Amino acid sequence: MAQTTPNHTQTVAGWAAHDSSGKITPYVFKRRENGVDDVTIKVMYCGICHTDLHHVRNDWGITMYPVVPGHEITGMITKVGSNVENFKVGDKVGVGCLAASCLQCEFCKDSQENYCDQIQFTYNGVFWDGSITYGGYSEMLVADHRYVVHVPDNLPMDAAAPLLCAGVTVFTPMKDNNLMESPGKKIGIVGLGGLGHVAIKFGKAFGHHVTVISTSPSKEKEAKERLGADDFIVSSDPKQMQAGKRTLDFILDTVSAHHSLGPILELLKVNGTLSMVGAPDKPVELPSFPLIFGKRNVKGSMTGSMSETQEMMDVCGKHNITCNIEVIKPNQINEALDRLARNDVRYRFVIDVAGK
Amino acid sequence: MAQTTPNHTQTVAGWAAHDSSGKITPYVFKRRENGVDDVTIKVMYCGICHTDLHHVRNDWGITMYPVVPGHEITGMITKVGSNVENFKVGDKVGVGCLAASCLQCEFCKDSQENYCDQIQFTYNGVFWDGSITYGGYSEMLVADHRYVVHVPDNLPMDAAAPLLCAGVTVFTPMKDNNLMESPGKKIGIVGLGGLGHVAIKFGKAFGHHVTVISTSPSKEKEAKERLGADDFIVSSDPKQMQAGKRTLDFILDTVSAHHSLGPILELLKVNGTLSMVGAPDKPVELPSFPLIFGKRNVKGSMTGSMSETQEMMDVCGKHNITCNIEVIKPNQINEALDRLARNDVRYRFVIDVAGK
Repeated sequence: MAQTTPNHTQTVAGWAAHDSSGKITPYVFKRRENGVDDVTIKVMYCGICHTDLHHVRNDWGITMYPVVPGHEITGMITKVGSNVENFKVGDKVGVGCLAASCLQCEFCKDSQENYCDQIQFTYNGVFWDGSITYGGYSEMLVADHRYVVHVPDNLPMDAAAPLLCAGVTVFTPMKDNNLMESPGKKIGIVGLGGLGHVAIKFGKAFGHHVTVISTSPSKEKEAKERLGADDFIVSSDPKQMQAGKRTLDFILDTVSAHHSLGPILELLKVNGTLSMVGAPDKPVELPSFPLIFGKRNVKGSMTGSMSETQEMMDVCGKHNITCNIEVIKPNQINEALDRLARNDVRYRFVIDVAGK
Repeated sequence: MAQTTPNHTQTVAGWAAHDSSGKITPYVFKRRENGVDDVTIKVMYCGICHTDLHHVRNDWGITMYPVVPGHEITGMITKVGSNVENFKVGDKVGVGCLAASCLQCEFCKDSQENYCDQIQFTYNGVFWDGSITYGGYSEMLVADHRYVVHVPDNLPMDAAAPLLCAGVTVFTPMKDNNLMESPGKKIGIVGLGGLGHVAIKFGKAFGHHVTVISTSPSKEKEAKERLGADDFIVSSDPKQMQAGKRTLDFILDTVSAHHSLGPILELLKVNGTLSMVGAPDKPVELPSFPLIFGKRNVKGSMTGSMSETQEMMDVCGKHNITCNIEVIKPNQINEALDRLARNDVRYRFVIDVAGK
């Protein structure tokens, strides 16, 4: 498969992994010229998502090397194509997981293009011109304007970057499950990481009682005092899990490690919903009894559509929601990936791409 | 725990398993006198449910021996308590899984008593008086009238018996997922056994396109010609499974053997729902990708409430839906259980309790 096409004439400096060792090194490559539907973006910041780690190490067996990761991108528009009306040079924008979709199927037409079966991602995807997509670990990006959103003026560009994936990934199922407009629910967030910590903020912004469910007792103080959680359940403590049975209306499970849904499902009320947004590479265990005896639901949700991404950004602007981040320089990416693999980050690494 | 209480004065002949060998032998025991809220039922027929097999063999580790199984019971009322207004002597009635619930919680008050957390079952449960409940493998039953339904006159009592568990178990999730009033959906039924074969009949009665998904190619002809299924997918054939991707609106999974939900979920359209009503004793495998990438739902459903059971019975009366059964004599129960364990029955054994 061609990695470049004739109009890929722009030279870009970036950072790539070249094999499953996952080691990231500087990498110079070509991007396409700015087309009529494109915007060119000077990348300012790029978050490091768990998906990046899976891709650089080829955990899912689908990586096309060299891979330039990064789909939590904020930056400034430097060029717009002639068909582009909703962006202008100088705009602060964000790019998330999506680079292209078919534009014609029922999902694309219904603003649900994230479920288009021709979907292509911001990196490790194949764009319409046949080129492999390269992500935000790079100084410049050319993106079709239909997959770009505005960043509200009041949000800092570094702490807003992870909203483009982590933010919309947790926002969409909360919206889908009517949590935006119906305050006072009891919701649980499983896993306090990049996704979980933003979910707490949405939960509180929407007026809910938020319980964090985590294997790490050490996170309780911070979850409550710094992030605003109302309650905390240590999932490895049978007494706490027993006391929490049938207490929650909704659970967002952000954990991407292998786990059983059984004990977590027991925390849900009858008819409650667990939304799974982590992507464990092995199947999770689903015992039938807690599912059946509680008439419970397990739902999947995959990032969000572009309109949902923009809505999420606007909600964050309104409520001043950003991610808690640790900003790193590009030469610290490998160290950051290693620490991410150990969950040693509170709560998201963001690469200062432009500031090096 | 007391197995009888002072008012357990009525002697009943039945059939029980006495240990985890699961062997059923004749067993004479006591039932309570007919109380003010009770009806006494001369048992005519009792279906043999897969749950009976799990209980007699103590697969779930919860069996209180001796266990008199049976929760697919049809019979005739022979006595009514003074508080009972909706039944009279001579009525044809059915008893399913439920023997008691708390009557006070939100679920009991909202006609969802099957999700009451004090629920007690027709056998291997503990009734309000502290006695262990004995099921329908017996000549006579005393039941609180709130857990008894009418059997429509046009239904034969033998082929109606399995409706009390198998029927309502598949009816309720179909109703819950709006399949009763919105014809023209594409629905899949996984597993063609006691539950699955009735589900086909409901699906067709409600006006849907019904696809059976089974590991047994040999069942295709019968599924289509005798039961009315429109299509058949052999789940072990990757080509057929591939061709079926994203084609179904709803899947009812009736399989109680261990299996992975991954390949089955792929058959669902985006936003589709798989309802799980089988109860595998080990957790099923739930791969995150088909769940997340298709925004799919996996729901549990446990039998039905008493009002749903009566509604199901009435629907069966209206559409002439009954189960395909093989009637046996009480002395053939052990053989039937063995054959059931090998799925060697089309599609439900029913014990002719009264006719021996």
